[in-house]
Amino acid sequence: MGSSFGVLFRITTFGESHGPGLGVVVDGCPPRLTLDVAHIQAELDRRRPGQSRLVSQRKEADRVEILSGVLDGVTLGTPIALVIRNEDARSRDFEEVARAYRPSHADYTYDAKYGIRAVAGGGRASARETAARVAGGAIAQQLLRSSGVEIVAWVDEVAGIAATVDPDVVTRADVDRNDIRCPDEAVAAAMIERVEEARKAGDSVGGVVRVVARGVPAGWGEPVFDKLDADLAKAMMSIPAVKGVEVGSGFAGTRMAGSEHNDLFYRKDDGSIGTRSNRSGGIQGGISNGAPVTMRIAFKPTATIMRPQDTVDPDGNPTVLAPRGRHDPCVLPRAVPIVEAMAALVLADHHLRQRALRPPSVRPGP
Amino acid sequence: MGSSFGVLFRITTFGESHGPGLGVVVDGCPPRLTLDVAHIQAELDRRRPGQSRLVSQRKEADRVEILSGVLDGVTLGTPIALVIRNEDARSRDFEEVARAYRPSHADYTYDAKYGIRAVAGGGRASARETAARVAGGAIAQQLLRSSGVEIVAWVDEVAGIAATVDPDVVTRADVDRNDIRCPDEAVAAAMIERVEEARKAGDSVGGVVRVVARGVPAGWGEPVFDKLDADLAKAMMSIPAVKGVEVGSGFAGTRMAGSEHNDLFYRKDDGSIGTRSNRSGGIQGGISNGAPVTMRIAFKPTATIMRPQDTVDPDGNPTVLAPRGRHDPCVLPRAVPIVEAMAALVLADHHLRQRALRPPSVRPGP
Amino acid sequence: MGSSFGVLFRITTFGESHGPGLGVVVDGCPPRLTLDVAHIQAELDRRRPGQSRLVSQRKEADRVEILSGVLDGVTLGTPIALVIRNEDARSRDFEEVARAYRPSHADYTYDAKYGIRAVAGGGRASARETAARVAGGAIAQQLLRSSGVEIVAWVDEVAGIAATVDPDVVTRADVDRNDIRCPDEAVAAAMIERVEEARKAGDSVGGVVRVVARGVPAGWGEPVFDKLDADLAKAMMSIPAVKGVEVGSGFAGTRMAGSEHNDLFYRKDDGSIGTRSNRSGGIQGGISNGAPVTMRIAFKPTATIMRPQDTVDPDGNPTVLAPRGRHDPCVLPRAVPIVEAMAALVLADHHLRQRALRPPSVRPGP
Amino acid sequence: MGSSFGVLFRITTFGESHGPGLGVVVDGCPPRLTLDVAHIQAELDRRRPGQSRLVSQRKEADRVEILSGVLDGVTLGTPIALVIRNEDARSRDFEEVARAYRPSHADYTYDAKYGIRAVAGGGRASARETAARVAGGAIAQQLLRSSGVEIVAWVDEVAGIAATVDPDVVTRADVDRNDIRCPDEAVAAAMIERVEEARKAGDSVGGVVRVVARGVPAGWGEPVFDKLDADLAKAMMSIPAVKGVEVGSGFAGTRMAGSEHNDLFYRKDDGSIGTRSNRSGGIQGGISNGAPVTMRIAFKPTATIMRPQDTVDPDGNPTVLAPRGRHDPCVLPRAVPIVEAMAALVLADHHLRQRALRPPSVRPGP
Repeated sequence: MGSSFGVLFRITTFGESHGPGLGVVVDGCPPRLTLDVAHIQAELDRRRPGQSRLVSQRKEADRVEILSGVLDGVTLGTPIALVIRNEDARSRDFEEVARAYRPSHADYTYDAKYGIRAVAGGGRASARETAARVAGGAIAQQLLRSSGVEIVAWVDEVAGIAATVDPDVVTRADVDRNDIRCPDEAVAAAMIERVEEARKAGDSVGGVVRVVARGVPAGWGEPVFDKLDADLAKAMMSIPAVKGVEVGSGFAGTRMAGSEHNDLFYRKDDGSIGTRSNRSGGIQGGISNGAPVTMRIAFKPTATIMRPQDTVDPDGNPTVLAPRGRHDPCVLPRAVPIVEAMAALVLADHHLRQRALRPPSVRPGP
Repeated sequence: MGSSFGVLFRITTFGESHGPGLGVVVDGCPPRLTLDVAHIQAELDRRRPGQSRLVSQRKEADRVEILSGVLDGVTLGTPIALVIRNEDARSRDFEEVARAYRPSHADYTYDAKYGIRAVAGGGRASARETAARVAGGAIAQQLLRSSGVEIVAWVDEVAGIAATVDPDVVTRADVDRNDIRCPDEAVAAAMIERVEEARKAGDSVGGVVRVVARGVPAGWGEPVFDKLDADLAKAMMSIPAVKGVEVGSGFAGTRMAGSEHNDLFYRKDDGSIGTRSNRSGGIQGGISNGAPVTMRIAFKPTATIMRPQDTVDPDGNPTVLAPRGRHDPCVLPRAVPIVEAMAALVLADHHLRQRALRPPSVRPGP
Repeated sequence: MGSSFGVLFRITTFGESHGPGLGVVVDGCPPRLTLDVAHIQAELDRRRPGQSRLVSQRKEADRVEILSGVLDGVTLGTPIALVIRNEDARSRDFEEVARAYRPSHADYTYDAKYGIRAVAGGGRASARETAARVAGGAIAQQLLRSSGVEIVAWVDEVAGIAATVDPDVVTRADVDRNDIRCPDEAVAAAMIERVEEARKAGDSVGGVVRVVARGVPAGWGEPVFDKLDADLAKAMMSIPAVKGVEVGSGFAGTRMAGSEHNDLFYRKDDGSIGTRSNRSGGIQGGISNGAPVTMRIAFKPTATIMRPQDTVDPDGNPTVLAPRGRHDPCVLPRAVPIVEAMAALVLADHHLRQRALRPPSVRPGP
Repeated sequence: MGSSFGVLFRITTFGESHGPGLGVVVDGCPPRLTLDVAHIQAELDRRRPGQSRLVSQRKEADRVEILSGVLDGVTLGTPIALVIRNEDARSRDFEEVARAYRPSHADYTYDAKYGIRAVAGGGRASARETAARVAGGAIAQQLLRSSGVEIVAWVDEVAGIAATVDPDVVTRADVDRNDIRCPDEAVAAAMIERVEEARKAGDSVGGVVRVVARGVPAGWGEPVFDKLDADLAKAMMSIPAVKGVEVGSGFAGTRMAGSEHNDLFYRKDDGSIGTRSNRSGGIQGGISNGAPVTMRIAFKPTATIMRPQDTVDPDGNPTVLAPRGRHDPCVLPRAVPIVEAMAALVLADHHLRQRALRPPSVRPGP
């Protein structure tokens, strides 16, 4: 259970880290969308391990294959199935792991839940699962792009080192310019140095990814439970290693007075209604207001470190987990396309939901 | 759309602020649960306006009536409908509001979405909607209590003034001891003073609610999208005025090294497996690990303030919104039972989901 | 569980036969629909007991009250809650019943499922539950009418006595002209005589309701599982006492050759594409083809009869159930508005689903 | 949309007739179930074309591959993805078809809905889609078998030629003994003769499949909308070519008096409660009563025939569709495993749903 996401634009993912393969079924993509497969592959490449020395060195080509739902490069309106084969499945690395619960991983909780666990590579709990999200999210992004919505995420903070980035203008080209995926070049250098330090120390660091969605028209999101920000929060919190989510002003906003925090409405030059500030993060009452949708997502330091750690085996016997295998001292750069994918999945779903219920007499924008 | 929440323990709410009434239908509550109606009413009373001078003075008795699903105080397994009538509907306060979009409220976004809006009191976007959540959540809490789960929330921070509270031992009695619902008495006094200041200044303050769920067994939560923390994040972010959510170490955890952050496993005195720290917030890989589930929720300062504010009317004409009507300078104390309700709804749902899929050979705990 | 129906136009019902009340929450009705409350009441009146001596004499005014989602007679896009109070709750009639399982009722199965049961009047299993469907369905019908869809059902067969009715032209006025709701007047008289016979004999009869939906544009319905006919079949089979469902040619079609059964396409005078026959019942591959959608629904004879019947009590002890209380010798006339309501709920839902996913380049018809 | 089925035991299918492949993702299968892959393949082989001269001669090996969710032959509790590659994709047969709408196929309705269509082999509307159902249903059957539930379907009627079969004792071995899958050997011979006649005449025949599920405990199924029979009706009506569904007495029951139709309760020799007849088809009030669940499903004659037929092309121009390609004069034998699969999917889902909500104090049977 729990491997589907979305109401109308709905994905279902599958796959263990070291099984035959993983993939995603996208049900609810409208027909007659020209699908750019190279873009899907490019997004997967941005998530893939082994891109730089900052991230895990696992070798996976992550070649995506489309099994259904597309004909001559155009969507049919039927489910689109994407499959990625696993290749580098060095399960010998995981023998010891089978006996010891890795701290702050999901080994113990999977055993408690299922009474069985695919030990190699963390099975379904592996971050490898996110490749399926990225593939599905790439299709969502293409749908959104045809409606004028653009999503950009970047690494905003690493181990407390914070960047300054303007969400209104930052581009993906800016983000991908360096290995850490932080468009503030000076800060990026400091971040990379910090990650290198952690790697040498056999340790890991965490950080914050920020994401903006520009061009979202006013009116997306449902009141009460399926608020746009609520669905975005779920989407982000479901990404492995995420421990916090902020929309707009977030926790900092709790220290402001209402008179400072409120976004005052005004008439923009083009005659439309806008707000002078965007502490709401583009969402008011759970519904988009036309301003950029902005979020910050907290990633804990990677749980896998190259140091011995005290733990227990499944029988509760104390043991020491020796460092072994591959190590990703900072997941942040690879998290960027995952965050973009999850944002796109939520927005595409709410785009279609609004299409279904929009009254005829409201302008056909959203 | 979007007024239902949960998969198995599922609520559907309805009601505008100044319509005839509001309510909730709970579908999926197991049969033969003894239902304490006084407890439901008590939770509603904790959320109700007019409890102290710290909060809004709207007069609402919020008397709950059960229309179905319960016989002689015991649940039947069929939908439980709870209805609350609106009484104090002073719609004359809202005449001007009809013309001016209130800053950081949902007036503009509802108009953009629906092309129609129940102006009085904010309609469906009113915080009054949360009474239905509290009623439904009270039933969830009674179900959880029968499984040994206890939920306590409190005001952890007001306008940056932070309390020190031990989540392992704090009780509701501790929380309800003062008007601000902060169990750290010294800090509570400072918070109350800060709220009074804001009220006198016609301004408002925000803050942070913290919540803990104790007694959640290991094994609740689904992998990938319906992670326990993901569903909790959605639940909390769907509460009006929430701008941020943290599980366990949250944003602070992003500044720690992996070697500091990891929760090491050990064998507890009773032979079970525990963790020496709880930076995971009781959830690893989206599944509960038996430790207390802990979250922090950021509430922005109340949007309604007693000061004139620049804004526009629906036609985009500039206007000034004059202060008028009632004012809640700090929603935090009333947010406490709402946060508890939402936590309970998520946990009750995952409790039932785990009952459905738990393998027979795993111990019958969860 | 199981008290909600629909994906986008979604209803949730509640209520026991002899509890305080019953009702329905409609979530997903588009905003700005002018709602005719008198029509909702009129549909409830058509379902109500006591309309004629052919049906049960229980006294229920079935006055509907709207609690939310509507302002000044126009829908807001938010959940519409409709409540009906129970009045005639003569629970003394049910004392004996508490001890004996009524044959072909749900007493035994509710006990087996829940371990508890609202004995009076059958609780949630009472046909009284269908009042909520009719109320929700009336809103669906109003939505559909604004899109040019018209639904008419009638009694097509009683105890084997079959009517001849033209589905292309029959109107509700034709149907409501007599107590049995059969527009074939001669056959209607024979049916009424047969029901009277059954009533005098303390027995009951079954029959078939037929329904047609005219004006459904081509393109509604999803392929594979959520086919339009599949959702209609579920909708109809969920009505109490239904044992069979046919679309188009139904079981009779199984005895035809393919060369006789196929509906040949041709160009109609207005240039559009039609079929020369309609054995498909307006649905091909699960998707409407523009022809009238036609179904037949089989209702078993009423289980309550005025004769002693052998049965057992909850402990398995043999006993005789004595005839008692009210008796509905033929539910067919009251089933007509229920069938119409269920058809409308399915069609309204698929109408919205098609709005969400229709490609921009397809003509804006459906 | 519409390619998922089930609430807890939930499948999502994908695939066009002549695309790269098709498959199914099963999310919600409990962990630690020993999975017999040979059984899945055997069920696919029973559905496969080319088994006998009675059915289509398309050559497809239909080899199933498991991509996830299973380790060393045991389920992990995570999604199980099954993929089948398409091999015999003779798309040249479909050139003419691209221009002419085949009568009583879904060509026209797919065009109307999507504005695009995978012409070759009917795309997603092809009966080939059902291979994914059979694969998913085989897993459901293995889960049910571990709970003592056994499902058997057979061809009960071909072109009006009806068999006599005892649903209480018939086995799959009985069914698979002849090519037409009718366990009444004498009638089977007559059916086969009738199909041969149709094949020689370039025509097709329809018929009825009957299915029984034995060993279903009392208590499965939800009241109101998700009744066990309602979900079964949807499941069956979603199978290509189905036009009617009956539970228990079905349409014949409408011609009986209540006094004849009612199933009287009695105490069985083992002390449990049973019914003396089973006109209810094992379901009362939407909930199983412990008796065998029985249904009859009507299949129209195959739409593809080897005769010229009048039709139109997408522009509405009259044309004649010439017979061409492969031809399945009677789909009934291949429908048997599909009906069993759909029955299993519904029962597995309700099995899990009842596990989730069953009160602790009720005996742990279901």
